[in-house]
Amino acid sequence: MEELVGLREGSSGKPVTLPELWGPCPRVRRGIRGGLEWLKQRLFCVGEDWYFLMALGVLMALISYTMNFAIGRVVRAHKWLYKEVGDGHLLRYLSWTVYPVALLSFSSGFSQSITPFSGGSGLPELKTMLSGVILEDYLDIKNFGAKVVGLSCTLATGSTIFLGKVGPFVHLSVMISAYLGHVRTKTMGESNSKAKELEMLTAAAAVGVATVFAAPFSGVLFSIEVMSSHFSVWNYWRGFFAATCGAFMFRLLSVFNSEQETITSIYKTSFRVDVPFDLPEIFFFVALGAICGVLSCVYLFCQRTFVRFIKTNRYTSKLLATSKPLYSALAALVLASITYPPGVGRFMASRLSMKEHLDTLFDNNSWALMTRNSSPPWPMEPDPQNLWFEWYHPRFTIFGTLAFFLVMKFWMLILATTIPMPAGYFMPIFIIGAAIGRLLGEALSVAFPEGIVVGGKVNPIMPGGYALAGAAAFSGAVTHSISTALLAFELTGQIVHALPVLMAVLAANAVSQNCQPSFYDGTIMAKKLPYLPWIRGRKLGSYPVIVEHFMNRTITTLAKDMPLEEVAKVVTSTDVIQYPLVESTESQTLVGTVEKTHLVQALQTVTPGQQSCLQDILTDGCPTQPVTLQLSPETSLYQTHNLFELLTLQSLFVTSRGRAVGSVSWVELKKAISTLINPPAPK
Amino acid sequence: MEELVGLREGSSGKPVTLPELWGPCPRVRRGIRGGLEWLKQRLFCVGEDWYFLMALGVLMALISYTMNFAIGRVVRAHKWLYKEVGDGHLLRYLSWTVYPVALLSFSSGFSQSITPFSGGSGLPELKTMLSGVILEDYLDIKNFGAKVVGLSCTLATGSTIFLGKVGPFVHLSVMISAYLGHVRTKTMGESNSKAKELEMLTAAAAVGVATVFAAPFSGVLFSIEVMSSHFSVWNYWRGFFAATCGAFMFRLLSVFNSEQETITSIYKTSFRVDVPFDLPEIFFFVALGAICGVLSCVYLFCQRTFVRFIKTNRYTSKLLATSKPLYSALAALVLASITYPPGVGRFMASRLSMKEHLDTLFDNNSWALMTRNSSPPWPMEPDPQNLWFEWYHPRFTIFGTLAFFLVMKFWMLILATTIPMPAGYFMPIFIIGAAIGRLLGEALSVAFPEGIVVGGKVNPIMPGGYALAGAAAFSGAVTHSISTALLAFELTGQIVHALPVLMAVLAANAVSQNCQPSFYDGTIMAKKLPYLPWIRGRKLGSYPVIVEHFMNRTITTLAKDMPLEEVAKVVTSTDVIQYPLVESTESQTLVGTVEKTHLVQALQTVTPGQQSCLQDILTDGCPTQPVTLQLSPETSLYQTHNLFELLTLQSLFVTSRGRAVGSVSWVELKKAISTLINPPAPK
Repeated sequence: MEELVGLREGSSGKPVTLPELWGPCPRVRRGIRGGLEWLKQRLFCVGEDWYFLMALGVLMALISYTMNFAIGRVVRAHKWLYKEVGDGHLLRYLSWTVYPVALLSFSSGFSQSITPFSGGSGLPELKTMLSGVILEDYLDIKNFGAKVVGLSCTLATGSTIFLGKVGPFVHLSVMISAYLGHVRTKTMGESNSKAKELEMLTAAAAVGVATVFAAPFSGVLFSIEVMSSHFSVWNYWRGFFAATCGAFMFRLLSVFNSEQETITSIYKTSFRVDVPFDLPEIFFFVALGAICGVLSCVYLFCQRTFVRFIKTNRYTSKLLATSKPLYSALAALVLASITYPPGVGRFMASRLSMKEHLDTLFDNNSWALMTRNSSPPWPMEPDPQNLWFEWYHPRFTIFGTLAFFLVMKFWMLILATTIPMPAGYFMPIFIIGAAIGRLLGEALSVAFPEGIVVGGKVNPIMPGGYALAGAAAFSGAVTHSISTALLAFELTGQIVHALPVLMAVLAANAVSQNCQPSFYDGTIMAKKLPYLPWIRGRKLGSYPVIVEHFMNRTITTLAKDMPLEEVAKVVTSTDVIQYPLVESTESQTLVGTVEKTHLVQALQTVTPGQQSCLQDILTDGCPTQPVTLQLSPETSLYQTHNLFELLTLQSLFVTSRGRAVGSVSWVELKKAISTLINPPAPK
Repeated sequence: MEELVGLREGSSGKPVTLPELWGPCPRVRRGIRGGLEWLKQRLFCVGEDWYFLMALGVLMALISYTMNFAIGRVVRAHKWLYKEVGDGHLLRYLSWTVYPVALLSFSSGFSQSITPFSGGSGLPELKTMLSGVILEDYLDIKNFGAKVVGLSCTLATGSTIFLGKVGPFVHLSVMISAYLGHVRTKTMGESNSKAKELEMLTAAAAVGVATVFAAPFSGVLFSIEVMSSHFSVWNYWRGFFAATCGAFMFRLLSVFNSEQETITSIYKTSFRVDVPFDLPEIFFFVALGAICGVLSCVYLFCQRTFVRFIKTNRYTSKLLATSKPLYSALAALVLASITYPPGVGRFMASRLSMKEHLDTLFDNNSWALMTRNSSPPWPMEPDPQNLWFEWYHPRFTIFGTLAFFLVMKFWMLILATTIPMPAGYFMPIFIIGAAIGRLLGEALSVAFPEGIVVGGKVNPIMPGGYALAGAAAFSGAVTHSISTALLAFELTGQIVHALPVLMAVLAANAVSQNCQPSFYDGTIMAKKLPYLPWIRGRKLGSYPVIVEHFMNRTITTLAKDMPLEEVAKVVTSTDVIQYPLVESTESQTLVGTVEKTHLVQALQTVTPGQQSCLQDILTDGCPTQPVTLQLSPETSLYQTHNLFELLTLQSLFVTSRGRAVGSVSWVELKKAISTLINPPAPK
């Protein structure tokens, strides 16, 4: 009897199949099936696309790890070659330089031949895209190969060329997310709105940073700070989820590959925990931040000037235009020759990889104190137990080496940024910052060998702490972001210096944000990408500039009572995507917009010679869009700026009492803002 | 000669005073003065009000520290009394209970007599304010005293009543910032726009959290997550600056007071660093997160139900309405009696303060393993060296005590939240979460005494790590925020569990965000405060609801050609703040708005009997405001929602071809959204 009731229940919902009836316990199975159905429904309503974000994170982690693995092999081969080639100087020199020269010219040639977008870090372009501007083909999946291969070659040159992978990785991650979005649209038929795409872009950027550093917190925050001016908490949570998946997978792979016992941070430090710094040291940390701020301004200025020089100089511009691989090869030759270890390289720790640079700089012993009384000779091979010996040269001492490293790497990095190939510039800046901090830290440890607070327990100064603060402050100042402080903690797995590092980063940002545009903003300006100048605080609110003062008054409206010939004339003579549609030529009351493509199509179907007006083809089915948001001539510049930034708009029509009187796009807005900031000189 | 040139130069700029002429080296001094002038200009253009933010941070740190200091003294006096009162049970019981009963009834009576706003945490009200709604008097400085005194009394009851200080502190900080803003407006004559006020509010909220926990990062992020749905990077930087100043000052004071040697975190832990957890433990961390998520839903549900019960029950509602102190005293008596140490309190570690609760729960040894073979007796006095003995009772074992603690504190906290007095609910939730995690951790350490990965080095399980993850996950789930993970690291000064804790928090949030509104949202609903329901992702975008469907069509417009009598009739019969002004009764073309107060003033000056229309008094000087932003009937609900949320708007007019056809305020918007989410049942 019960069986029968069950059967009836089942048949009332879905058709019951035979095996279902015959198997044991149909009730229990139905219950389980119902539960699973419910679970599935619940799971797929949680933020709708968590599986998508998860896939993105895992995929990027796989790519990042595979790339690291492959690069590691190439670097090891280079090291082996350099070691085995014998003592002949010529052969050693060749084995040191030919490798990067070949890799870089290939990287530059290969990636540039596929797409010109692949050069540089990609972050400036992404920043532009996040503000709503559409860069055609920039996220095309075909760029992916160019970027992956190019970046791998660039990174395989190791510390010779001294470049990183953050920027290109963010670009890769965004490409993958755009591609996955397309796939989903095709397979599941979901519509992919623009707002949705921007959401994905934000999450993907966070994944990019997180899978490089295995640092989900700073991945999310850094990508927000660098790329947006506003963001929603909803996007931030999605970013966290995706970034955590990515970071977890990335570290999991290295555990599976027996590189480490469990999931830990990448550049693990072992700072003293009980008293990591004496209180008065806070002052030196802040001073270090200010120094880093000033140096970052110098760096940004030199970098922009040099890029401009390279672009305008007759020889270099010609070289860059005609044969990019040759330029890359020449630059690589210069960089590799300088880092040649038996040559000048021995004074700048050039036998260390970039990871080893950071590991040694964050060392918590004072090298200056350790080498004060003994001066070990320069080792023929780097000693794996005491890698920091590379930073010491008997003739130069620690200070000489660090200072020389800074001076040389400073202009070498500027030279490297001009090479047209996929490369990130965050990591080298981070290391340079660490060296600045280390230099100050070593100086302090010599000045106060017993620690600063005399009496009580002696707490010797740890130069590694200063290196950490310097790295965070310098990279924060160059990129105008604060989350580099958090990145420093996540990378090292210790947070004992929380306040001093944060204060150093704030000091550095205070200096650099006042004097120079950030590295990414500078590149946006140099590449002439569309962007909205950023207005801080109330500055703009205090000026009585309204839309009427700066709007574009020469808009071409199409009236519904316009004869078709005139419409055809307007359409052929102007070059815009959509036209404002008004009620009549006389009233000019805005009723909607009509797209040029639709209009052209509709016009082509009209029999020529027939006298009719625009209204006719609109009723015939030419689609129009309603205007959902409109400005008034009295709207203030401040409000308009806010509106454009918050809603990532491209243009809006201005209506006065219903009449279309003008339009505002970010071009007008930008002009208005720059006139405000730099008023034209009175003539 | 040079002197003369100098004099002339000086006189061209400013009048030169006599002492300036007579002192030595006028040139150098002028140079220095010029430099200082330049520095001042530069300093004051950096974000315009950094000195304001700094003052806010320092002030809040001083208040927080002073409060802690005073509370510490009161708690010590209570302990001393309890110890010295002898062995008589009645006396001991009285000394244990009278203290909190007196303090709580005073706290409740005092704060409620000054302002009814002072009850609860204050975060829900601030969240409402941040969305643009103005709550009158809520930030008045006279509430300050009520809140400070009330909160100090609440906290002085210690772990008996088991409440925290985060929420009220955020409220205090916002009050101070509003007050400082008023002072600045008065002394410096700067205008204080609404946008500016909201900016200050955000920064002040971050300061509030940061000065309680000395955690600038999570202070900023937590205040953003809990209080806003959108925020600008610019505000986030300002928040960081203010929060860092606050946190630094707060810790500096405790160094100066010789409580610690240097600036460190509050709840310092000493987890094993090399292998903090075995890889498979990640699974348990995620499971712990899910458990915390489920428990948080249970908690939130019970809490809301109980609050509703208290409000609707005949006796309690009457008691709460007429004599709040009596209700507080009764509740305090119940809570204190249960925690009486020789009674039930001995099974729930009630002799420990809340700080000691956390310190012991984060202990990295396994108590279950340590007490497996030996069973120490329950000590008469807490042993300062082994405070964790308080968690152990020979009859109950560790597991019994922890489970009993959880069960009891669960409903005791719910009871405590109904007491009408200033109190924060974050800290108790954080501790309960830590206890949940500890329970799981102890169970695991008994199940796997040799660590999970067998072979190689033995890494015993650290229950403290689970306590950390549990605290972050449970508090994150209750408040719907992820930054509690970061808070856990900043509080303990260790970040070795970065990924597992983050994953636990994400799992907990996934569960709780799907099932229950957050603690703060629930309170907003219970208090019937105005708020906009939050729409996640694209859900809303997929519905074709446009403004036309839900706008308020019954707006009262004033036409310029309206006779004054009719205007007077309209003004007296309706109750709105501003009226839309239209060109003529016939055309209804929106031209601006006019405020009721201005209109009434203008109407009063008109000589009665004179026949004239509205246009006349407008030309006579009654001020009108332009409409800077207007909706179309075709604007989608999604767009409108975005607009209201991003620009913190209160209402907008809807125009169709220039005609004013309706208005939308958050009331309409909320109704439209809730109809979408819960469609009305078809009748």
